[in-house]
Parts: sequence; C-alpha cells; structure tokens
Amino acid sequence: MAIKYAKRMNNLKASEIREILKLTERPEVISFAGGLPAPELFPIEEMKLVSELVLNEEGAKALQYSTTEGYGPLRDKIAKRLNGVGIQGDGDKVLITNGSQQGLDFSAKIFINEGDIIVCESPSYIGAINAFKAYLPEFVEIPTDDEGMIMEELEGVLSSRENVKMIYVIPDFQNPSGRTWSVERRKKLVELGNKYDLPIIEDNPYGELRFEGEFLPSVKSFDTEGRVIYLGTFSKTFCPGLRIGWVYADKELLHKYILIKQAADLHSNSMSQRELDKFLELYNLDEHIEKIKVVYRKRRNIMMDTIKESFPEGLKYTYPEGGLFTWVELPKDINARDLLIKALEVNVAFVPGGSFFPNGGRENTMRLNFSNMPEDRIKEGIQRLGKVIAEMMKQ
Amino acid sequence: MAIKYAKRMNNLKASEIREILKLTERPEVISFAGGLPAPELFPIEEMKLVSELVLNEEGAKALQYSTTEGYGPLRDKIAKRLNGVGIQGDGDKVLITNGSQQGLDFSAKIFINEGDIIVCESPSYIGAINAFKAYLPEFVEIPTDDEGMIMEELEGVLSSRENVKMIYVIPDFQNPSGRTWSVERRKKLVELGNKYDLPIIEDNPYGELRFEGEFLPSVKSFDTEGRVIYLGTFSKTFCPGLRIGWVYADKELLHKYILIKQAADLHSNSMSQRELDKFLELYNLDEHIEKIKVVYRKRRNIMMDTIKESFPEGLKYTYPEGGLFTWVELPKDINARDLLIKALEVNVAFVPGGSFFPNGGRENTMRLNFSNMPEDRIKEGIQRLGKVIAEMMKQ
Repeated sequence: MAIKYAKRMNNLKASEIREILKLTERPEVISFAGGLPAPELFPIEEMKLVSELVLNEEGAKALQYSTTEGYGPLRDKIAKRLNGVGIQGDGDKVLITNGSQQGLDFSAKIFINEGDIIVCESPSYIGAINAFKAYLPEFVEIPTDDEGMIMEELEGVLSSRENVKMIYVIPDFQNPSGRTWSVERRKKLVELGNKYDLPIIEDNPYGELRFEGEFLPSVKSFDTEGRVIYLGTFSKTFCPGLRIGWVYADKELLHKYILIKQAADLHSNSMSQRELDKFLELYNLDEHIEKIKVVYRKRRNIMMDTIKESFPEGLKYTYPEGGLFTWVELPKDINARDLLIKALEVNVAFVPGGSFFPNGGRENTMRLNFSNMPEDRIKEGIQRLGKVIAEMMKQ
Repeated sequence: MAIKYAKRMNNLKASEIREILKLTERPEVISFAGGLPAPELFPIEEMKLVSELVLNEEGAKALQYSTTEGYGPLRDKIAKRLNGVGIQGDGDKVLITNGSQQGLDFSAKIFINEGDIIVCESPSYIGAINAFKAYLPEFVEIPTDDEGMIMEELEGVLSSRENVKMIYVIPDFQNPSGRTWSVERRKKLVELGNKYDLPIIEDNPYGELRFEGEFLPSVKSFDTEGRVIYLGTFSKTFCPGLRIGWVYADKELLHKYILIKQAADLHSNSMSQRELDKFLELYNLDEHIEKIKVVYRKRRNIMMDTIKESFPEGLKYTYPEGGLFTWVELPKDINARDLLIKALEVNVAFVPGGSFFPNGGRENTMRLNFSNMPEDRIKEGIQRLGKVIAEMMKQ
C-alpha cells in the first residue's frame, strides 16, 4: 500500500513536548517540561455545582447542537473581561474555540497560502509553529530582547519581503522566553501593521497571571484599524480540560474564523460552554486567579532563587514577572537535547529550546516550567539540573 | 484596510443549512431542515450522575490537559462497540475527535493538495463538502442508485483520472438521500480501493439507527489492506453537544490523524470524554438507542405515510430504513430554493437539495429530516408542504 499524503504531511512531526511528556509520566520524574497548570487549584467542587445546575436548568440545550459562534452569554462575559487588557469588548466579536490552539490553526488556515511568510518572535511557541506548518508557510524569525520583538528588525523584513501575510506575537510572559513586551513596542507593532496592511495575531494565554510589576495594555487595545486578532483562553486561569478559548476580532475578520470553525467542527462543546458561563455567573474568576497567582509566584521565586544558587556561573536566564516559564541560555557548545538525556537519568525533564525556533538552531537553550510542580520538588529538580549542567560544562 | 486572505477563503461560504436553521428558530416553524436529534431523548439525569462521579473520582484529571489520542478506556469501549458493524476493534486504532465533522476536515487536510480529486456520492453530505473545500480539491461526483454508488461509474473515473486522492462515502442511511448501500457494492468499493491504491473515508453517523431490514456490515469490515478510515460519532446515538466522534484507522494512517489533531487543537474535551466513558460503563447505550429508534421509526412512518397521502403524484422519494432523512425529487422545472421561500410563508422549512451536489445542479431536490419534530407536527408540516408543491406544479 502506498497511499499518497498531502505535501503538508512531510512538514509535521509529533510535538517534542508531547513526546517528552509521555516519558515524564513516571511519578518520580520532576518535570519542568509541560505548560500544565497546577491541578490542585482546579475548582472541582464549583464544577460539580455548575454542571448540575446547567443540566437541571437547560440540559436539553446543553446537549444539543448549538451555534458555531458559541454560547451568547459566555461570549458577552468574555467581552466584558477583556476590559482587563484594555479592550472595550463586544460579545459579537467573540468566537469560542477549542482552546486558543484552535485559533492558531484557524489563523494560518485563513491567511496562509503555500510559501507565504509568517513573521514571529525568535523563539516562538512550538504549538503555534506546528499548527502553522500544516499550511506550508515560510517563517521569518525576528530577534527579541527584554522589551520584546526588535522593531527595526521587524520593519527591515516588512519593507524588504513581499509575501508576508501575518505577524504572530505573544507579548505577555512569552512562551517560551517568559519575556514581556514594553508598551512602546506594542504601539509600534500596530503602527507597522497599519503601514504594511497586515493582520497581527496576538496570543495571550498568560497575561492574567502577572505576579508583580505594572499592568500593560494588550496590543489589541492600541488597534486603530481592526487588524489585531486577539486569542485568549481559560486553560491557564480556569482549566484546560474543557478546551475553551476564544478569538476576538472585528466583524469581517471574525466572520472568516466562523466560516472556518463551521467547516472544521461545527461548534465547541455546548455543555462546557454553559458550565463555564454558569461558573462566571456564580463565582468570581478574578479571586480564583489571585489564588493561582499566589501559588505560581512562590513557585517562580523558588525556581529563580534555586537557579541563582545552583546553576553554574555565566548562564543567562529571564526573570519572568508572570506566566509559566523561564528560559535559560546555556554556553554555546552545550546542546540542550544532550543535556535532557542526562537530566532524565536523574529524573528531571524540561523542553530543549531548539524546537521553539521554526528555522532551527539555538540548541543551547531550554524552557523551564514552574507552574506544575510543588516547591520542594522545584528546588530539588533545579539543584539536580544545576549539577548536570556543571558536569557537562566541565567536559 | 485590504488584508489578504488565503485562496481557500474564496471557496467558503456559510452553510446554507446553518443559515436556514437560524430562520427556523421561531417556535411556530415546523422544521425538517436540520439533522438534529430529538432533545427529549437526551439522557439528562444520567449525565448528572456521571458528571458528578467523574468530578468526584478523577476531577483533577478530567479538567487537565490530556493526550491527543483521547481517553484510553473510552477508546477501548468504542473499539468494542465496533463489533456492531462487523469490525474487530482495537482501542489503539481510535482517535477521539470533536464530532465526526472534525474527522472529515482532517481527512482532506491529510490527503488533499490543491487540485487533487475527491470522489464522492452524488449527492453527498454538505458538511463534508464544506470541510473538504478548504483544501481546494476538485470534486468528482459518482451517480448513485438504490444500492449506493454505481461501481462501473466509479471505476470509470478511477481508471481515467490521475490525481484522485480519496474516496468519501456514507453507506448507511446516507445524508442526504437516506439510501443504504448493498453488501456487494461495499465489497466492490474495497476492491477498487485496493486496485487503485486509494484511501476510503467511510462516514457512518447513522448506521446504528436501523429501524428495520437486515444488518449490513461496514465497508471497513471488508477492508483487507487497512485503507478504510471509519468515522463514527455519538452525536446521533447519545448527544451532539459534547462533540465526541472518532476516527478508526490502522496505525500508520491513524498516526497522521493524531499529528493533525495535535496541531489543530491538542486534544478533545477531557471532561466530556470521561463522562461519556462513565455513561458507557454504568448504562446500556444499546438500550438507549432502542428508545431512540422507536421514536424515530414512528416519525419516519408518519412522514412517509403523509408524503404518500399529501404530495402530488409523480414525485420520487426514498424510503429510508433508518437514519434521519428522506430525499425528494421534484419535477425538473421546480426549484427547491423557490419552494423553500413559499414553504417558509406557511412556516415549514427544509434544505433544498442543490447544496448537496458539490459541482452544483439538481435544484429540483430537497432533504427532509424526520428526527426532530413530534408526530403531529410532522403530519401538519408535510401536508402544508404538499399543498405548496401542488400549487407550484400548477403554475
């Protein structure tokens, strides 16, 4: 049998993170690999109540087919919450998706023909890179510093390359780097989007998890022409298992996403949408997020303190003000994939950074997650990792 | 602003059914338009129990990220149920998807480059046509009769066209025609698939809803080389709101679907998968399906009887032995879209058949759904529709 696949299938391989996660299911492994929220914070009791209420009050509707756009009251509540990132939200501009991952897939599906250019941060989110790859784009990575994407480099690309079709960014507590863009860069990005007439995909799964420092308005909040498409999710602030994210965009753009969603899977889970809506009605999600932040802040602190104490001198790493990740640059001659093999021998896991560069390279980097492990295991794991790094540096 | 969209976006428009459904939300409309199951049969009380149990027993896991393939015990139960269609199922060959609609989208994504040919029945399911269109295929429609796709016509195409890449069929109670393939045609289809080395997508959302007549084994059950990809769903036998369907395929093929699912939305709703699994553990789904069949059989009967009594002489229509739909051929000069406008004036809705032909034409056809309306309204609606047709035929 020699069935022929579409060309895009040559481009796809299993996400390295997912494969590593499989290895790390053994309970003795201290994993900094995933981007998993802390399950002990999930509102299980509240879920039991809202689930019962939804089934009592509107069970038949919750189990029936529903509209592609999503459950109206939930769309309205999401729009209202967007005030938190400086957006005067409108429920009609919200499409419910299966996590923001689906919004990433749809974005490339809507904008990208084979060979078109997607501009992204270097490094960028591996899940976005994999979703985009199915549409056979060319990636152009833009160097970043502590304030985000470097705008002169971005303009250099936009002014010299013809078939750039979209810009993809994660301005808050970026995955994988943990960095956050300055306000100036956010404004400048919109300016350049306007000048070169390009859609901007702003992916913001972590923005609500700020532990310290000042609030920064979203890129979308500076959008003057309706070209910023904002992707949000409840995966990090509520729970990921329900797969509820959203696309927020102006009407014409949103309509394209709705068409694609209809063709892709008709609509998102009706029951879970109503459960989440009921939760938002009965409980205070912001209070819940405060609880999450207290725990993650402590975990971030212990990770960063232990890195400082236990990692060899001369490594670079980011100090994230929120989110789930820090990012470490090892000496140039150390390959993080080799390091991972040695780390797994002492039951510590992380994601080598190379996969976050769509065009490859930078194998001396790694992403560390601090949200999913308790404090004592973070300390222990980072200490072990420090030793393994030190040994590799000696060789 | 003149943002450029991918070429595929020119091909997509909102599903006519979904647009009609919006018009038919007024309670006075007797709708034969959707493919909605009867909501009064949804197991709401059972859902309350299983939801509580899942949250009690494994709440944190049900709300966390999970594997792309789907929840293991549910995959095993689905595999076991496939015995019902003549397949010796294996849980490792199951991928959980968001309804079988997602399996349709993935199929085209995996096999189709721009311009490749998808061979399908004429007519075929509008939702599949729309999902496939996003990958810019050419459709070749094969004429059908009461035993299914005409195999000589199929072989004529396969032997003369070069870039055929997949065959898509709905052999049981087809949407929209209500027809069922004979065993001989099923076997022959596999033979031709083998001869021309093509993947066959067998879409079977209705097969378990047989009201009468003998059981027919699935096309997949005759598969000798692992080239048949079987799509199933709980939308019609349990409820559609949870969006749980599956792809059943041999390992190499399934792996492609898993890669695509991972890139598209990581995984399906963890909570709903566990709820359904718990339901299948505690209750007898086959008993539940028997209840559904009793209701639908009566509704089918009243629809077919009333059509016989009230529709003008000389129309052709199928007598479905199961499923949700019958299919009516009007006189050649009657356009069903015009008929719909007149029918809506007397508060009756249906889907004009033209949209089920990917290359257009056959505007004198219509699809009637009998699962969603109570018997008295079916009778009343068909009588009204008969009058409107008779009036149009006089003009």
